[in-house]
Amino acid sequence: MDDRGARRPDAGMTQPATLAPVLSGLRVLEIGHFVAAPFCTRLLADLGADVVKIEPRGGDPVRQWGEMIDGRSLWWSMHGRNKRSVTVDLKSDKGRALILRLVAECDVVVENFRPGQLRKMGLGSEVLRGVRPDLIVAHVSGYGQDGPGANRAAFGVIGEAIGGLRYLTNQAPGTADLPPVRVGVSIGDSIAGLYAAFGVMAALWQRDRAGGDGRARTIDVALTESVLSMMEGMLPEYGALGKIKQPAGGGIATAAPTNAYPTADGQWVLIAANSEPLFAKLMTLVGHGELIGAPGYASNPERVANVDTLDQLIGAWTRTLSAGELVARLDASDIPNSKAYTAADCAADPQYRARGMVREVPDKHFGTVLQAGMVPHVPESPGTVRWAGPDLGEHTDEVLGELLGLAPAEIDALKQEGVL
Amino acid sequence: MDDRGARRPDAGMTQPATLAPVLSGLRVLEIGHFVAAPFCTRLLADLGADVVKIEPRGGDPVRQWGEMIDGRSLWWSMHGRNKRSVTVDLKSDKGRALILRLVAECDVVVENFRPGQLRKMGLGSEVLRGVRPDLIVAHVSGYGQDGPGANRAAFGVIGEAIGGLRYLTNQAPGTADLPPVRVGVSIGDSIAGLYAAFGVMAALWQRDRAGGDGRARTIDVALTESVLSMMEGMLPEYGALGKIKQPAGGGIATAAPTNAYPTADGQWVLIAANSEPLFAKLMTLVGHGELIGAPGYASNPERVANVDTLDQLIGAWTRTLSAGELVARLDASDIPNSKAYTAADCAADPQYRARGMVREVPDKHFGTVLQAGMVPHVPESPGTVRWAGPDLGEHTDEVLGELLGLAPAEIDALKQEGVL
Repeated sequence: MDDRGARRPDAGMTQPATLAPVLSGLRVLEIGHFVAAPFCTRLLADLGADVVKIEPRGGDPVRQWGEMIDGRSLWWSMHGRNKRSVTVDLKSDKGRALILRLVAECDVVVENFRPGQLRKMGLGSEVLRGVRPDLIVAHVSGYGQDGPGANRAAFGVIGEAIGGLRYLTNQAPGTADLPPVRVGVSIGDSIAGLYAAFGVMAALWQRDRAGGDGRARTIDVALTESVLSMMEGMLPEYGALGKIKQPAGGGIATAAPTNAYPTADGQWVLIAANSEPLFAKLMTLVGHGELIGAPGYASNPERVANVDTLDQLIGAWTRTLSAGELVARLDASDIPNSKAYTAADCAADPQYRARGMVREVPDKHFGTVLQAGMVPHVPESPGTVRWAGPDLGEHTDEVLGELLGLAPAEIDALKQEGVL
Repeated sequence: MDDRGARRPDAGMTQPATLAPVLSGLRVLEIGHFVAAPFCTRLLADLGADVVKIEPRGGDPVRQWGEMIDGRSLWWSMHGRNKRSVTVDLKSDKGRALILRLVAECDVVVENFRPGQLRKMGLGSEVLRGVRPDLIVAHVSGYGQDGPGANRAAFGVIGEAIGGLRYLTNQAPGTADLPPVRVGVSIGDSIAGLYAAFGVMAALWQRDRAGGDGRARTIDVALTESVLSMMEGMLPEYGALGKIKQPAGGGIATAAPTNAYPTADGQWVLIAANSEPLFAKLMTLVGHGELIGAPGYASNPERVANVDTLDQLIGAWTRTLSAGELVARLDASDIPNSKAYTAADCAADPQYRARGMVREVPDKHFGTVLQAGMVPHVPESPGTVRWAGPDLGEHTDEVLGELLGLAPAEIDALKQEGVL
């Protein structure tokens, strides 16, 4: 299904795509729901891991999230891709017994229940490692597995706020009475899922490498901590100087001019022209060459001090042009710029298309679905979309037969009992 | 320096911290600068890898970024931690020869020059693999290593815009004439660096595991693609329905009420109360119990349709209370909430402190520096801060002696020549 290798004659890479998928040979059990844990396992599955997703008979609620067609979520087609869906009732003794038999066949378990929940269900790490002593267990939670606040209810937007991200995603103090803005997606959940994928592979490497220790490890990822880890100098600067980092709206507190500017056709175009040569080029375009090297504008610190004036004057010019015309003029002057891409812009971008980062994926319900490709790209063995998000329990018979040797009659009986 | 193990009697983890660091035995050469590649290697170093950072004699410019004391960046204390700094002039033949000798001793090279730049310098992957055939090479770039747009200048804010993040980080259309907001940090660079760390560990696992293929792989991470990969249902929904996902300001387009609300003391508090029981609790607190189950408010879809009215009415109440009083009342009613944490709030948070996610780190120049801890947390072998960001070239003699067996006299001669 993946034709990137063929599509990339200009790759200039060191090898053609000839190796096995990066994570072939790895088997992961997901007992997750919503965004964080399933995003982690999507990344592992995209690179070739066999991910078995355990779902209750009602299914992961994310199957109903976002825009739907005939009750099927379009997002699920991408979020659930490359995974095998198996329904198991975790509340039944027979269900838990099946989980333990599956765990014995897996390298990793990824889960995102509230801390302690799996243990309450009789599936704590010590129980899981009773059947698989070197099991890597990844927990993704709002605040971590321990500590005084571990059991607070986890909501993505609240985790992002506690991580320090929300306060900084706002207009500069005094600019507007509007609330700080949420990034349009659950970015904290996805970053936590990515950290979990990193931690899982790190633990597997130490466990499995020649000279490694063969030991089980626990990957404890908190949404709040995942966000806080990306806050750059915020903590060091506060600790040493008592300085509380402040939001800067569309700009950057330490560089000018760089912002998103409005166009005649109601779009936004990013312009980054805070170096001396770029500032000179931009002022020439804008028709204010007199500011080049002028007092108050001769250096980045001076321009930062006058950033509001500068942004108004640049904005007055950009408002006279359509986004297309503005981008064309900026490109002609080699000034770094870009429209603030919408879904339509991303879908049409030739660079994304050339690299297979935007691709049509066959889906048995939707025909094809437009999806994002795999990150990272591994040219010697690119990730592939082997199948789109599966139906609930689509692989129950296949997985229980293949991994546990259950006969169709046994599986049917378990379904009758409501265990599957 | 890491005292988490001791500080976590309530850990409830399956093992005490007794194992070797997760990435002990791994050696990484960083030929990077600014944010993305150095963030990738920070994550690897935090988990115990030996990261050798190659810097020009002028040093990585990031050493001068952000707030400084005596010309030293506070952020660098965290960004550079746990790495060994070695100065090498890549433009000199002797410098390149030293790099190749170092590469022969490393498992991984992480770089973030413009695509093709290293090859131009005579350090392309094929050359590096001439001395280390199974070398994992991670490239972090703005748009990827190939494709028609690979060589555009990479700026973080522009990469985030092309990834679709900036358009969605804004007030709802028609709300305000203000530009879409930049997340207060270079989030795209950090996400790309995290993807690179994940990819590196995935490639190392397949190379080094029993039954693995022992093969070199390339990890090609683009900032734009890293951001786009987190856009959830944006592409599938656009492709199938032509629907262009729109920003929703502080709220969520599909849930209400959930937003950041203003307080009497000029702060913002997140409240997430879009389920029926939470909505009822909140309306009781706000003093509008009549809306519970009332037409227009009886279900989440109805509330979404009336979200502006609802947010105004909630905001009118929150404005009468200080953030502390508001949070206390919401907590008393078990309504999920949080202040939009500032640097000061993050620094003081007891959960972060209990988990060592906010910690004082010894720094020879600053005394101690407040830093974020390690993500992920691995209780059996927690990451540690072995040392804060090193001085430029602090480990040149040590590394060239230890890894290449150079004698002090040889090293001094190379310094005289300006190679080091």
